[in-house]
Amino acid sequence: MDGKYKEIAEELFCRSLAESEMRSAPYEFPEDSPIEQLEERRQRLERQISQDVKLEPDILLRAKQDFLKIDSAADLQLFKEQSEDLVDHVPKEREVLLEREFQRVSISGEEKCGVPFTDLLDAAKSVVKALFIREKYMGFSLQSFCKTTSRYLQDLSEKPLETRVCDEIPETPVAADAPVHPPFTNRHPYETCEPQSMPSDLGFGLKMVNGVVHVYTKQDVTDKSTELDLPYPDLQEFVADMNFLMALIIHGPIKSFCYRRLQYLSSKFQMHVLLNEMKELAAQKKVPHRDFYNIRKVDTHIHASSCMNQKHLLRFIKRAMKKHLSEIVHVEKGKEQTLKEVFETMNLTAYDLSVDTLDVHADRNTFHRFDKFNAKYNPIGESILREIFIKTDNRVSGKYFAHIIKEVMFDLEESKYQNAELRLSIYGRSRDEWDKLARWAVYHKVHSNNVRWLVQVPRLFDVYRTKRQLANFQEMLENIFLPLFEATVHPASHPELHLFLEHVDGFDSVDDESKPEHHIFNLDSPLPGAWLEEDNPPYAYYLYYMYANMTVLNHLRRKRGFHTFVLRPHCGEAGPVHHLVSGFMLSENISHGLLLRKAPVLQYLYYLAQIGIAMSPLSNNSLFLSYHRNPLPEYLSRGLVVSLSTDDPLQFHFTKEPLMEEYSIATQVWKLSSCEMCELARNSVLMSGFSHKVKSYWLGPNYLKEGSEGNDIRRTNVPDIRVGYRFETLCQELTLITQAVQTEELETIQEEDSLTMSFSPGPQ
Amino acid sequence: MDGKYKEIAEELFCRSLAESEMRSAPYEFPEDSPIEQLEERRQRLERQISQDVKLEPDILLRAKQDFLKIDSAADLQLFKEQSEDLVDHVPKEREVLLEREFQRVSISGEEKCGVPFTDLLDAAKSVVKALFIREKYMGFSLQSFCKTTSRYLQDLSEKPLETRVCDEIPETPVAADAPVHPPFTNRHPYETCEPQSMPSDLGFGLKMVNGVVHVYTKQDVTDKSTELDLPYPDLQEFVADMNFLMALIIHGPIKSFCYRRLQYLSSKFQMHVLLNEMKELAAQKKVPHRDFYNIRKVDTHIHASSCMNQKHLLRFIKRAMKKHLSEIVHVEKGKEQTLKEVFETMNLTAYDLSVDTLDVHADRNTFHRFDKFNAKYNPIGESILREIFIKTDNRVSGKYFAHIIKEVMFDLEESKYQNAELRLSIYGRSRDEWDKLARWAVYHKVHSNNVRWLVQVPRLFDVYRTKRQLANFQEMLENIFLPLFEATVHPASHPELHLFLEHVDGFDSVDDESKPEHHIFNLDSPLPGAWLEEDNPPYAYYLYYMYANMTVLNHLRRKRGFHTFVLRPHCGEAGPVHHLVSGFMLSENISHGLLLRKAPVLQYLYYLAQIGIAMSPLSNNSLFLSYHRNPLPEYLSRGLVVSLSTDDPLQFHFTKEPLMEEYSIATQVWKLSSCEMCELARNSVLMSGFSHKVKSYWLGPNYLKEGSEGNDIRRTNVPDIRVGYRFETLCQELTLITQAVQTEELETIQEEDSLTMSFSPGPQ
Repeated sequence: MDGKYKEIAEELFCRSLAESEMRSAPYEFPEDSPIEQLEERRQRLERQISQDVKLEPDILLRAKQDFLKIDSAADLQLFKEQSEDLVDHVPKEREVLLEREFQRVSISGEEKCGVPFTDLLDAAKSVVKALFIREKYMGFSLQSFCKTTSRYLQDLSEKPLETRVCDEIPETPVAADAPVHPPFTNRHPYETCEPQSMPSDLGFGLKMVNGVVHVYTKQDVTDKSTELDLPYPDLQEFVADMNFLMALIIHGPIKSFCYRRLQYLSSKFQMHVLLNEMKELAAQKKVPHRDFYNIRKVDTHIHASSCMNQKHLLRFIKRAMKKHLSEIVHVEKGKEQTLKEVFETMNLTAYDLSVDTLDVHADRNTFHRFDKFNAKYNPIGESILREIFIKTDNRVSGKYFAHIIKEVMFDLEESKYQNAELRLSIYGRSRDEWDKLARWAVYHKVHSNNVRWLVQVPRLFDVYRTKRQLANFQEMLENIFLPLFEATVHPASHPELHLFLEHVDGFDSVDDESKPEHHIFNLDSPLPGAWLEEDNPPYAYYLYYMYANMTVLNHLRRKRGFHTFVLRPHCGEAGPVHHLVSGFMLSENISHGLLLRKAPVLQYLYYLAQIGIAMSPLSNNSLFLSYHRNPLPEYLSRGLVVSLSTDDPLQFHFTKEPLMEEYSIATQVWKLSSCEMCELARNSVLMSGFSHKVKSYWLGPNYLKEGSEGNDIRRTNVPDIRVGYRFETLCQELTLITQAVQTEELETIQEEDSLTMSFSPGPQ
Repeated sequence: MDGKYKEIAEELFCRSLAESEMRSAPYEFPEDSPIEQLEERRQRLERQISQDVKLEPDILLRAKQDFLKIDSAADLQLFKEQSEDLVDHVPKEREVLLEREFQRVSISGEEKCGVPFTDLLDAAKSVVKALFIREKYMGFSLQSFCKTTSRYLQDLSEKPLETRVCDEIPETPVAADAPVHPPFTNRHPYETCEPQSMPSDLGFGLKMVNGVVHVYTKQDVTDKSTELDLPYPDLQEFVADMNFLMALIIHGPIKSFCYRRLQYLSSKFQMHVLLNEMKELAAQKKVPHRDFYNIRKVDTHIHASSCMNQKHLLRFIKRAMKKHLSEIVHVEKGKEQTLKEVFETMNLTAYDLSVDTLDVHADRNTFHRFDKFNAKYNPIGESILREIFIKTDNRVSGKYFAHIIKEVMFDLEESKYQNAELRLSIYGRSRDEWDKLARWAVYHKVHSNNVRWLVQVPRLFDVYRTKRQLANFQEMLENIFLPLFEATVHPASHPELHLFLEHVDGFDSVDDESKPEHHIFNLDSPLPGAWLEEDNPPYAYYLYYMYANMTVLNHLRRKRGFHTFVLRPHCGEAGPVHHLVSGFMLSENISHGLLLRKAPVLQYLYYLAQIGIAMSPLSNNSLFLSYHRNPLPEYLSRGLVVSLSTDDPLQFHFTKEPLMEEYSIATQVWKLSSCEMCELARNSVLMSGFSHKVKSYWLGPNYLKEGSEGNDIRRTNVPDIRVGYRFETLCQELTLITQAVQTEELETIQEEDSLTMSFSPGPQ
């Protein structure tokens, strides 16, 4: 018996000695065993997913035949620029130059491009046109547009471009080695709020015409002649541009062209990392003191009403129940209720409360169920608690909400390096929402140097309309924008709002994008004043009218020397891909952008225009896309400008440091290097709305410069090599596109036709 | 032109209106596009991975034919037990009974089992025999063995079983609703250390014979007659048992049987969750105050030398450089060096230091490179810093290490609910290691009620032997165990060690398991005294001799009323699967166990024996297995006793709360429910070495009882339903096995033969 066993055991041991890797060990599953097969399949998939890497050789082989002239040209030009730059603003230490040196992937060969010649031209022309469209809308609304891209476009366009914000900002004379402390005054900005101390009244008249506020030099707005000369967006032009882009993103050849370029960018990045990883790491180590923990990070997408984690909210409520039991916090059918009574009606005591009873955390059941998720905003499923504790406008005039927000602000200040742009809601139901919100902020002194505000407008017209709270869509727009114009024309008429706006970066448009849309936005769509039906206007419609009014407002504010606003909507989280078209045209940067993974043309455009994308993988993981399928690492490798944000710590996070948690999980699951983590952090600062002065302190005085000149590793901890690689790669892409166009300027007309002729609705 | 675009755009919009899900939208990729294909494949894989679910119906169909008699029988019996139990110890509230009620998956049908009848018998007999083997070794060494399993085995065995630790512990009379505060005295255990106050000297003699310490009633150990009657493990028997198990895990039919049972367990759990999720959630909500944040958690696998996170270590070093610059911390070739000098030789200032320069964090380059990873233990790659700051035995007699550990302890005490079992090293190079270690702990008063110690012995004999520091393996064993025997026989001879051991739970065996082993452990292997070669003994050899000496030691300590030790090695992290066989036979519970995913028989045995497995997915992710392929969720669903631990926060974690970070990521990536999180936490306490008294306070006074009787949701926040499900499922599995054996008791002999005859080395 035992002898038998011994024999077998011996054999096994011997084998396992032989086998370094255990794949075929006899105590594992024979090939035909189901687990083995599962394992097999898993690995096959692993291979498939990492196929990009495998494909590299071919892709590069093909790519080799694309590039010679272009790239070499680009490179040369590039080096000239660089060395010039260096001469201009950098201490001529050889060291610096050396540190910027890295192994470049340069491609040589004969042909012009991997795709058929005409395809390249189609693609180049259309892509360029698309970029011109975005540049137009950005310039028009005083939002920023990527400097590098616009420089390349410049060469193609005759007409001078609209001036862009980023150009206007004076390059402040901060010493390169100035101490890194935020340039804030100690004086609380909300301390004094006397109307007399405010800018004078311009006495302008305001009137909304076709959904856009018009400004008149006289109070009497009937007299057209007095209309102020401000740029008003043209609906016809917008629809035409939108249609062009819609047509573009289904154009077969252009799609495969963009797809190939994106694949090429992935592969090129992988090579760059393989070749320069160690050098980048060394550069980071050489920087004294600086590491991932003490570089500036901005949570660029987080909602104020859920910016505290569940444990924090629970503690806060428990404390309130101890301290303010007898305070009147709520009015139920005219009857006033104390906090005590409110909890009695729910028969709950402070002791009973737990994170489980609170039940605000997303769980398995919220996946693909945005409705269920929204319900999670109500602690204990009771909207009343939400009203009492996380609303600005309630019986206690938002006292509790103010306090808990200030606690979050305190934590951010403690952390010193973490900052946030909290989103507050304006619904557009009534004209006084802005004043109430501003009063809340000013009265409770809700302010921190680590925090800026964004104002989110939920797309809930249909709800209010059904409740007869609004007569038409224009009314909603008036409620949202007229107060802002009034506060700009005559600050003293809305003193708190005037102060509050100083700390508002811009606007967000929020709601479940996967809700079906029943309208097509085109010239036949009813104008806002005529939008009487109970149906919700489509995403593009909301965005356009917010953009239009913001544009006029921005020019008015600029005249007065007030700071201007930007549009940063939720976009491409779910639902139809064409939301991303509106986003591309109208917004400075977006949140989520998950659907770009399905739309190569748009993804390529977002890359070329370097449009910021604030992504929240943990949020996606609970709602729309499980973690390891999230496209963030792919975007990052291709050079899209992505950042990490928390969205809703109350619903998604567990630890006391939600933003660090977000970074940690991303780094762990996707094996990001310290260099990539720092890139994400730098991007978050760049796309944030903090002032130029602040950014200069956080990223270095030259942060607006292109390429590694704009980087200060002593503050960002991002190696110049990485920034340089991103810059050069972008330049090469832009060169490829623009040169193609230039060389074929003459053929333009034929191209135009061929382009349109070849449009097909695409496969079903 | 525009007209053309308009047309297309319109069509697109119309489509996207039609399409709720966007798969076939025209601006996405045509079927033949590579991305689409990639997506396709991804999803195909998704399906394959979630195949278990898909398979459910069939599996259940087949399973249906297994169970009728058995299960119904089991269920009845079960209910009788339950209700009896209820009568015994629980207030007869109907409510309680109701809360325990849940929807059960009961299976009916005719046949006996899905697998051929003889296979079931083979399997049943062998599995039972394997379980008996483990029970024998556990009882023999006074380690614990699953109560439920042993109850079922009892029915089969004639001879009375060895008494088990868990039976001995008196059920303390804690009131069921006693306040949950740890039962600790305020007096510091290390305050007084007078030899005279210690238990008397027994004057026993000690001598290691063939690698195992023997005890004699007289100091003169030459006189065999005076040998104390203690159970000494029998090498021959051990090798025979091991061979049996080795043969078992490759037996084809048994493998498929175990695989089917494991699949069945997965499917059954999925059904349980689908049917009872809401009820479990409700139960958790009903518990006042308690939630995941305030249930007790134990970090059951964490190394003291890396228990602080990188930021913490960095801060500590910087502080030390400020405060103790001129302190002599190191001796280089007889020349004493101050901290200042040490850093000057590395030319570094406190300001220079950053997490990057520290470079202790695991990164992409450590994956499958344990060697590289080990280097990460050296801050700035300088072993000298490791020696100064994270060693107990150095020029400052471990002062810095003591301080930083105490800071970690303080954080744990602050958190109140987080506890840890820190691993300290004994190398076995010299006889005084234990005393030095104990002196370090006692002198610096390194103690916390939230912390227990485990002693890890690195498997480095080959290294020491090559350096001629050891003559043979027995010397290493003597260095490790003789001091412990001496301190047990005559505490006053090692006063600090005597006190220190009070807080030591047991032993761990550590090293890179993937290192090739050049020996087979069998009766021909040289005995420890004869192990002179420079090769390292195999894993099983190390484990057996640690077990053997621990066993003798435990019996000796039990005689004196001292607490006993357990074996909790690293096991199945990588390398040969048969490490898990040694673990199954000799250790109370293990760390990692990743390779169980490749060995169904062992996985099934670990389940039936309910052997604790402390898993560290983040550690695995950096070293051996990427996160989303980690088998933890699979193990958990099947009912294996798994817990979450951090392993090396210094290398793997980013936030200030490593354990919470570990839980958070697991929950997010695998979508665990709050119920599963609490199960993991409860398991961690159960498998920890904290005293029975402490556990009674943390888990409830009845925690040793089986099934939901042993659960107190008011402290564990785990619903009785879940515990009940786990218990019933285990009982049903055990019933299936044992009944099969009983019904065929007669056929035993034939079975035995057929079993052995059918052994084949298995496929290559």
